[in-house]
Amino acid sequence: MASSFGKMFNVTTFGESHGKELGVVVEGVPAGLGVSETDISFELKFRKTGNYLVSGRREDDLPKIVSGTFNGKTTGAPLTIIFENVDAISSLYGEVSHKPRPGHADLAYIKRYGLENWDYRGGGRASARETISRVAAGAVAKKLLMLFPTYVAGYLKGIGPKQTSGDVEAGDIQESKKYQTRSLDSSTDREFTELILDAMKKGDSYGGLVEAVAINPPEGLGEPVFDKLKADLAKAILSIPAVTGFEYGLGFDASRMKGSDASDEICLKADRSLGLKKNLSGGMLGGISTGETLRIRCSFKPTSSIRIPSRTIDLSNMQPTEISVTGRHDPVVAVRGVSVVEAMIAIVLADHSMRSGKIPVVKLEKEQSELIERRWKEYIARCS
Amino acid sequence: MASSFGKMFNVTTFGESHGKELGVVVEGVPAGLGVSETDISFELKFRKTGNYLVSGRREDDLPKIVSGTFNGKTTGAPLTIIFENVDAISSLYGEVSHKPRPGHADLAYIKRYGLENWDYRGGGRASARETISRVAAGAVAKKLLMLFPTYVAGYLKGIGPKQTSGDVEAGDIQESKKYQTRSLDSSTDREFTELILDAMKKGDSYGGLVEAVAINPPEGLGEPVFDKLKADLAKAILSIPAVTGFEYGLGFDASRMKGSDASDEICLKADRSLGLKKNLSGGMLGGISTGETLRIRCSFKPTSSIRIPSRTIDLSNMQPTEISVTGRHDPVVAVRGVSVVEAMIAIVLADHSMRSGKIPVVKLEKEQSELIERRWKEYIARCS
Amino acid sequence: MASSFGKMFNVTTFGESHGKELGVVVEGVPAGLGVSETDISFELKFRKTGNYLVSGRREDDLPKIVSGTFNGKTTGAPLTIIFENVDAISSLYGEVSHKPRPGHADLAYIKRYGLENWDYRGGGRASARETISRVAAGAVAKKLLMLFPTYVAGYLKGIGPKQTSGDVEAGDIQESKKYQTRSLDSSTDREFTELILDAMKKGDSYGGLVEAVAINPPEGLGEPVFDKLKADLAKAILSIPAVTGFEYGLGFDASRMKGSDASDEICLKADRSLGLKKNLSGGMLGGISTGETLRIRCSFKPTSSIRIPSRTIDLSNMQPTEISVTGRHDPVVAVRGVSVVEAMIAIVLADHSMRSGKIPVVKLEKEQSELIERRWKEYIARCS
Amino acid sequence: MASSFGKMFNVTTFGESHGKELGVVVEGVPAGLGVSETDISFELKFRKTGNYLVSGRREDDLPKIVSGTFNGKTTGAPLTIIFENVDAISSLYGEVSHKPRPGHADLAYIKRYGLENWDYRGGGRASARETISRVAAGAVAKKLLMLFPTYVAGYLKGIGPKQTSGDVEAGDIQESKKYQTRSLDSSTDREFTELILDAMKKGDSYGGLVEAVAINPPEGLGEPVFDKLKADLAKAILSIPAVTGFEYGLGFDASRMKGSDASDEICLKADRSLGLKKNLSGGMLGGISTGETLRIRCSFKPTSSIRIPSRTIDLSNMQPTEISVTGRHDPVVAVRGVSVVEAMIAIVLADHSMRSGKIPVVKLEKEQSELIERRWKEYIARCS
Repeated sequence: MASSFGKMFNVTTFGESHGKELGVVVEGVPAGLGVSETDISFELKFRKTGNYLVSGRREDDLPKIVSGTFNGKTTGAPLTIIFENVDAISSLYGEVSHKPRPGHADLAYIKRYGLENWDYRGGGRASARETISRVAAGAVAKKLLMLFPTYVAGYLKGIGPKQTSGDVEAGDIQESKKYQTRSLDSSTDREFTELILDAMKKGDSYGGLVEAVAINPPEGLGEPVFDKLKADLAKAILSIPAVTGFEYGLGFDASRMKGSDASDEICLKADRSLGLKKNLSGGMLGGISTGETLRIRCSFKPTSSIRIPSRTIDLSNMQPTEISVTGRHDPVVAVRGVSVVEAMIAIVLADHSMRSGKIPVVKLEKEQSELIERRWKEYIARCS
Repeated sequence: MASSFGKMFNVTTFGESHGKELGVVVEGVPAGLGVSETDISFELKFRKTGNYLVSGRREDDLPKIVSGTFNGKTTGAPLTIIFENVDAISSLYGEVSHKPRPGHADLAYIKRYGLENWDYRGGGRASARETISRVAAGAVAKKLLMLFPTYVAGYLKGIGPKQTSGDVEAGDIQESKKYQTRSLDSSTDREFTELILDAMKKGDSYGGLVEAVAINPPEGLGEPVFDKLKADLAKAILSIPAVTGFEYGLGFDASRMKGSDASDEICLKADRSLGLKKNLSGGMLGGISTGETLRIRCSFKPTSSIRIPSRTIDLSNMQPTEISVTGRHDPVVAVRGVSVVEAMIAIVLADHSMRSGKIPVVKLEKEQSELIERRWKEYIARCS
Repeated sequence: MASSFGKMFNVTTFGESHGKELGVVVEGVPAGLGVSETDISFELKFRKTGNYLVSGRREDDLPKIVSGTFNGKTTGAPLTIIFENVDAISSLYGEVSHKPRPGHADLAYIKRYGLENWDYRGGGRASARETISRVAAGAVAKKLLMLFPTYVAGYLKGIGPKQTSGDVEAGDIQESKKYQTRSLDSSTDREFTELILDAMKKGDSYGGLVEAVAINPPEGLGEPVFDKLKADLAKAILSIPAVTGFEYGLGFDASRMKGSDASDEICLKADRSLGLKKNLSGGMLGGISTGETLRIRCSFKPTSSIRIPSRTIDLSNMQPTEISVTGRHDPVVAVRGVSVVEAMIAIVLADHSMRSGKIPVVKLEKEQSELIERRWKEYIARCS
Repeated sequence: MASSFGKMFNVTTFGESHGKELGVVVEGVPAGLGVSETDISFELKFRKTGNYLVSGRREDDLPKIVSGTFNGKTTGAPLTIIFENVDAISSLYGEVSHKPRPGHADLAYIKRYGLENWDYRGGGRASARETISRVAAGAVAKKLLMLFPTYVAGYLKGIGPKQTSGDVEAGDIQESKKYQTRSLDSSTDREFTELILDAMKKGDSYGGLVEAVAINPPEGLGEPVFDKLKADLAKAILSIPAVTGFEYGLGFDASRMKGSDASDEICLKADRSLGLKKNLSGGMLGGISTGETLRIRCSFKPTSSIRIPSRTIDLSNMQPTEISVTGRHDPVVAVRGVSVVEAMIAIVLADHSMRSGKIPVVKLEKEQSELIERRWKEYIARCS
């Protein structure tokens, strides 16, 4: 496998859905950053299971920092955050052990690692439970980005038949933290909720569309020609379970446009720096950030685990059969996906900021450390 | 910058649009692979400039292998392929040196590397001229993939207002090598040609949509959780200049679907191996290849270099001004983009095949070497 | 920091001397390898503190596998092994917090990470306590190497004034597991013991020389020109705390020799394969393993923590002062260093075996898995 | 193979002894550094063949910069430097094609890559000719280090029976550039010369010992726990052909010492910063640079190519035979090895300086650029 991501801000996740513990080692955090279990819990809350729209599995998701800090601040040593699995019910997966679930990673894991080595319990390593480690590391990345300050925020733009349209102001996107469906207003929240409840009732699921921004990103991030910012963002986002597409700026629409319509005037901004009139290119040109708002969208496929039976093969006798996936699953993974998308964007930005010398790679100055702490507190207050 | 891509099959490109030479070092090619300048030229032909639909720049694009082979076969040493720039006319870029072109990398390079260090000639390092190195390396990757054999093929699915629809059989896609617009039939080729000529006449440009497949890919490729095959493909594709979006399988459509509609039955194939009825997931589950056809799509934005004037800032006096980009440019970069997309897919597949032990990492057996040579000849015959 | 090592068999360690937990994530272990906490404990025993020759700190060193196995075998997922710190007495380090200890990493950490971010408790991240993670990962690597089988073994060749001489048969080196000083016979063990006890009494310490071999290594390992096997071994060994030098084969003696004396005849071995008469080059030519026994030596400096006072600066008032390091320390770190040297060699060999396709990178066949298990049991029986 | 070295200042070499061209891609050089072919030639001169003490092969060694600079300064794009092979006489190697030379990489390459894929001409990829690329990249690294300024210098401390002793002041080591044997005074130069001429006459060769320093290195370089500065230096040095050992500071002597003798007082330096009285640890503690002079030593084995016949196997009939290596070879590779050792140290320091934020990773400020240029000119003047 390949469980590490990032060159300077480097994240290694470990753990399976039903293993003893999951966690993440974040290597490369500069010394002097305040990191507490509370900081991490704040971000985890938005990914958390337990409300009635998402999987019934009840996990405390309590982060335990076991290395990398001293007196509440990072020391430069690898920062390790660990979670215990407390509510894994492997008995729910007896049938799965010989009936690969359509749409799941099951078939692919069996082909790659062998049926005899397959940890089928709750999806094993392929489970979205792994994303808890990403959100934890993302919290650290988000906090580091307070240096600029860059704010990463996402929202759920659509679910199955209900897609919202129109451009959303970047500044409004942080509102999504207020709604359980991660939508941007109460009427959409209500509509999404109804769709989700309806899917649950029918034993079905929906796909979803997530849009995310990074407000006030550092300019000049991205390393041509292969580690362009758009390329590393695409990789980060596509590494998330269930994501099937990525676009930035005009995205796929650009393929249907004329150059004269897609053109975006270079202008002087109020502070006399160079900017773009419309920011049609999602904050990046030549794969390098321009300093304008970064904007990406990604699609999540419908949860593959549905109660409505689907056809598969029973590996114990190699005969066609059906499986109705019970277990405990989100009917729309995209809801919790919003947090994971935010986390991955934050990780990419923290990494590239360090790669480009915009965030100190070894240690923060005391003033930087304090500035970050202050802005983080404001951010928490604003999003609570 | 970051000019290397791939963990085991590793590609490092160098060179600028108007520099002396461009080239690529391919590290990790197993010993015993026949590689000739003719092999590479075959693939380069489909990326080549010079016909009336693409940039007027006349480059021979003659590959010179300067290291890594002995008696026509690789030795395990880094394979280096070099191209001379012969038709760079830097004088066309005098105006650009102080007027960053909207939509181009100019502004971003200036912000990142400084105006004083900016090689504005022909786009410098950001020029799509760099993709010649990718196509050359891609030729080597494609040849290695003959071991299975896996065939990578792409076509131009749409240009601006003219988008073709409907599912295309993977096997038909290699037909695109017969049409100058890389479309799949002569009537579409005609329509695309008209659009391109029209754009040229008006000094405008169009975006385009490219679809590509890998037929008969090895199963079990992809390393969770970060180096999933879908993630590395996304990165590879988004690292291409002008690409603004990536999707695979159902892609963005999945976000609007129900789980019961997106479900894809697991079945037994004719050879009694496990397969998928409809291959809705584009050949990958859990980010790992299932052995079914890989299928991706990506969007190219319209060429930013257009004669129709766009507004920018004159850096010599920091005043608003206009620029009408003359130089020599493709009106639809997606046409030549097809070759680059194919190359990047082939590179990712060769890399992951080596990472997963499907292609020998040190040396090919004699029979493998000969098998590859035979299939390569057939492939060339079929596509010529 | 940089806490990862290895390209395919990849080890990430985390944790500080007095942190809550230490551990290691081993990424890249093929699926199907039996790994138990007992396996790991077996190797840890030889690094263990607690007998009267080494540090008085009493740690259970109980490995806890929290991810990566299912039914006692690896699944391909990252293997995580965790240790709790139970006997850290940070109060012993009050004085150290403002008096950097000569010869220690203290001064360098302060310069790099800042005094305010320095975890001075027990040496923090720089403590040799971190090597427990290396030995744990090394146990996994050693087990994988049973596939050939390759055996890695080391011994203590000299301590301070007492240096043994003469060539030691590779096969005899595993005897060192029988002696508490990791020497090769009881008389040397006695002499070393006396020296160590004497050093303890005087509050002083000694350096030591370790020699190690890998018996029956795979041939053809090592990737020119930078990842030569000798280069990666050198890095691995020099990454161990207190190591000050590395040599292989003739080592430094070669600098004083004539070519005609250093020449080593190429001959046919009993099995008609090509070999070397004398193996003067320590099992490597051109940085690639020849299949002959690998042989390296490395020097450990004397433990810097000594009771005899040394002069330093009191950072609280920037005045010269003295420090007499109490804490609990080994008088000769090289004794326990033998295990760490073995572990690092095993990790390098496992990594390069995977990089060169000699060990399957994704999963072991059932027969391979069983063969390994059988040989591992024999190895444990022989070394117990 | 693995032909890349360095994380931020990244060097990829390519080319074989008798291939068309050799070269190096240096990725990661910040924009704004003046780099000319003259700069590179200056360093190459000290590695050059052609005087009567070294190989008779006559190569111009003219560097050609083909990418990465604009108006004489780097742009951030990969810097590529190419050399043509003009005096390769492959006909001298007919016998070698089936008689692997003892002590050479021949046997190992045959085992790894297969006899049928072996480029035996002049040692192919294993030839020390490859080191020209390292010295070229090292010149760029050395120039970057003028920012501090750090000076890297080495000398030949001993040849076979003639070993000089005593500590040499770091400042005196740059004198070695004045002597053809890279020794430090004319009498040693004479003695070394006699030994070399004697070896040539007898068709024999000698090993050699090289010592090198980095004067005024940045403090705080090195990333625990695996990328310690001592570890990366060891890897860099052991990656050089013919090097058999590495040590720093007290090196192997430390293994025979008492802690109280090896202890090194921490003191206040004239500028009130913290330093070490004796710098016994070669400029590194805990694997991190202290700011004191870095000092390493390494051993080169005697050239394996000797006229005195050695026994090998004739692969055409698998019978024992003899080979007397004619070709054109240095009788003491360590002489030219000095330049390569310097280059590799400079590369490691440039890389770690960038990794630790001591050298800007994206672009130099104008004043930095000019300061470097000024100091470089002084350095050249002093060493000419």
